[in-house]
Amino acid sequence: MSERPSKIRKPKSPKRNGNAQSSMARKSSILKQTLVFSAFSILAIYALFNTFFNPTTSPSTSLFDEHFSPDSFGFSGKVTENDAQKVKIFMYDLPKKFTAGIIEQHALARGSKDASQARYPGHQHMGEWYLFSDLNRPEVDRIGSPVIKVDDPDEADLFYVPVFSSLSLIVNPIRSAGTEPVSVQQYSDEHMQEQLVEWLEQQEHWRRNGGRDHVIIAGDPNALYRVLYRVKNAILLLSDFGRVRPDQGSLVKDVIIPYSHRINTYNGDIGVKDRKTLLFFMGNRYRKDGGKIRDLLFQMLENEEDVIIKHGTQSRENRRAASRGMHTSKFCLNPAGDTPSACRLFDAIVSLCVPVIVSDSIELPFEYVIDYTKIAIFIGTKASLKPGYLVKMLREVTTERILEYQKELKEVRRYFEYGNSNGTVNEIWREVVQKLPLIRLMINRDKRLVKRESSEPDCSCLCTNQTGLTSFL
Amino acid sequence: MSERPSKIRKPKSPKRNGNAQSSMARKSSILKQTLVFSAFSILAIYALFNTFFNPTTSPSTSLFDEHFSPDSFGFSGKVTENDAQKVKIFMYDLPKKFTAGIIEQHALARGSKDASQARYPGHQHMGEWYLFSDLNRPEVDRIGSPVIKVDDPDEADLFYVPVFSSLSLIVNPIRSAGTEPVSVQQYSDEHMQEQLVEWLEQQEHWRRNGGRDHVIIAGDPNALYRVLYRVKNAILLLSDFGRVRPDQGSLVKDVIIPYSHRINTYNGDIGVKDRKTLLFFMGNRYRKDGGKIRDLLFQMLENEEDVIIKHGTQSRENRRAASRGMHTSKFCLNPAGDTPSACRLFDAIVSLCVPVIVSDSIELPFEYVIDYTKIAIFIGTKASLKPGYLVKMLREVTTERILEYQKELKEVRRYFEYGNSNGTVNEIWREVVQKLPLIRLMINRDKRLVKRESSEPDCSCLCTNQTGLTSFL
Repeated sequence: MSERPSKIRKPKSPKRNGNAQSSMARKSSILKQTLVFSAFSILAIYALFNTFFNPTTSPSTSLFDEHFSPDSFGFSGKVTENDAQKVKIFMYDLPKKFTAGIIEQHALARGSKDASQARYPGHQHMGEWYLFSDLNRPEVDRIGSPVIKVDDPDEADLFYVPVFSSLSLIVNPIRSAGTEPVSVQQYSDEHMQEQLVEWLEQQEHWRRNGGRDHVIIAGDPNALYRVLYRVKNAILLLSDFGRVRPDQGSLVKDVIIPYSHRINTYNGDIGVKDRKTLLFFMGNRYRKDGGKIRDLLFQMLENEEDVIIKHGTQSRENRRAASRGMHTSKFCLNPAGDTPSACRLFDAIVSLCVPVIVSDSIELPFEYVIDYTKIAIFIGTKASLKPGYLVKMLREVTTERILEYQKELKEVRRYFEYGNSNGTVNEIWREVVQKLPLIRLMINRDKRLVKRESSEPDCSCLCTNQTGLTSFL
Repeated sequence: MSERPSKIRKPKSPKRNGNAQSSMARKSSILKQTLVFSAFSILAIYALFNTFFNPTTSPSTSLFDEHFSPDSFGFSGKVTENDAQKVKIFMYDLPKKFTAGIIEQHALARGSKDASQARYPGHQHMGEWYLFSDLNRPEVDRIGSPVIKVDDPDEADLFYVPVFSSLSLIVNPIRSAGTEPVSVQQYSDEHMQEQLVEWLEQQEHWRRNGGRDHVIIAGDPNALYRVLYRVKNAILLLSDFGRVRPDQGSLVKDVIIPYSHRINTYNGDIGVKDRKTLLFFMGNRYRKDGGKIRDLLFQMLENEEDVIIKHGTQSRENRRAASRGMHTSKFCLNPAGDTPSACRLFDAIVSLCVPVIVSDSIELPFEYVIDYTKIAIFIGTKASLKPGYLVKMLREVTTERILEYQKELKEVRRYFEYGNSNGTVNEIWREVVQKLPLIRLMINRDKRLVKRESSEPDCSCLCTNQTGLTSFL
């Protein structure tokens, strides 16, 4: 029924940018022992010196400052955990149908002859793969993580449910009807969702606190949509709240995670010399809901000479074109998609192409540490449609200001690199850990609350009165 | 206009239980230097040994394990901060009328001849005094605190507003009309509140983020009641939400602080031999709102032979009687007062008298780390009034179970001792620090949010559906 997660193969096309964890996992155990011994020696020598020159500093934390350096970008983060302080996380060994089985189904749906050899496919919600892989690595490769794995659920502070909920959603769409084996035709994401919740509800540790101390990933805005109301107590890892009701998800309980960028990181220096295009956009012109803005922006912008705005869907060739465009433009347009978030924002960030965000309800990852007004320009949907306004405003941004944006983009880029060993994965765990005190409070409080007649939920909120705010330009 | 806070005298009758910070503050600077040097030597030697036997352990944190030991009581707390990681707090040097001036007014109202020599008076909301004193101590005396003071507001993560808001509320009530000097008659708590907010609104750092990164104490449920809507963005330190509207305060943003217990700590061991009384209560029989339960409980309980239930108001003599009663009873009754919280709960805890809480809307301090079902019995208001039910239920609790409660009470007692150098004050700061990531998120988010037409606030909530819960017995 269940397969050891470590048997699952890594993605076929791993991202660039130091996919350190997967390469480290391949090192031999002899090399590991050598590394451990070296680290031990360095620590010992370091502590000795440190003792005499700065006796109140902790050697274990200072030595890893490079991994953990408090960010000069806004909030310092307070991030130098050591093992004894780290939050303990238990990853469920889920039945295969919720993990490796979904990779197989995806491969089968695309005509694979030997689906059991399939790797996790690259796509914009593959954060679920990186988190799963991270918790599968041996602990010695996870130095620098804010969470420590435990094998005994009774020791755990948090429980991770490593379902491939986003991949499950895309198993079927691309297949052409009638050409697949029967088993593929029968795959149902909705059925998977129902089965997952049934499985969870049988788990002792889920039932204990109604799932409050569980972490569930649903990166695609439509992932797990059918069962969200049954897992709403959990800490959800989401891209936005576009499909999530206010009683199911919130900034207080949940963590906004970045899409996995789909175009290459721009590795050059900051500058505008090679960025002749003022504003670039390539993507689907036609979207539902908030994304209707796209067609209107196309009409307004497609005749501006230093603006490139092109209709295009996800394909390898289009990704290459988008990559070229984002690497040679000063600004990248980020209108809302069907939901407020879109992968393009994260492509723009790693391209050092200053994002111009037109999405009034967007929520942004790691906003507790990243001040997005330093890396992006926000324009209200209404304002963006005033004829001539957007382009005129962008043309007036000085080169000096663009360089400032680029400098800040470069500093925060690691937050958006899932493949970076000090990147997105650690930062997601760090934010999850920050939720723990409030989660604990609610767990303890639930135990002693007196039953009331009211069917109104009892809520604790943090509010913003938006009428007092002005659009940032 | 403003006086250096350090000139303010400490309370006339300091609490027992290791009022370490005030005694330490009196030590001479020579002694301090000696202590610092000794600490340095011990650290150096410790680190040297530690390096060879356990090189990955931090000497600075391990040495203070006694102060910081992760609590065996529930959540480990993750509490071993070092200086570089500590959150930086700036305490405003408020105009005298918001601090020392209130102590003087209180003394004048009670007929003091030389109010300038007055000390902060003991009362149940004197937490404001302890927090103020803590941040006035030299940093060398604050080792173990989760926050570090800074003198430059531009370096601060958080801002503390040390107004004596609870003392201000009780300046007037006791005075007998017409006998005081004119200046006393003119004192107005409401005027003080208005002036405080006017002063705050002139401060650059308050205006910068609308007060979100400010910490304001309002221990008495009526403190600052007139201006709460103007300081609602701040982290409020409150006893409960009885007088606070949901858009002004919540478990997400604010910190519930304990009352300062008014009777002596029970220093004996756990046991029931000297606790012949089953259930004890002494306090005001007549209260408004949720407190109406009191009179009904009196009627039901006053004829039970092993129950002591007495009407009595706050006085030195009554406190002595209550102290005797709580130290010689197995259970202590804690019905709601005018608001859901009351000082008596904290008296019961330090007396190792198992609290029996009858207050359906109570919020409890440090609940993220304390599971109150381990130290108290909760009974719904309705259930508590079933004739014979309460007493029968308590009589059935085994001695073994009572000893378990007492053992846990003893373990968490330090959380309720403001005078303990590893007690309430540090724990309040620790919980305040935990709010910071969410506060930062909201600050950054406010900067880029697009103005909307809606006058509905945009809220992030954490909810409990109370209908699914049952009364804990």
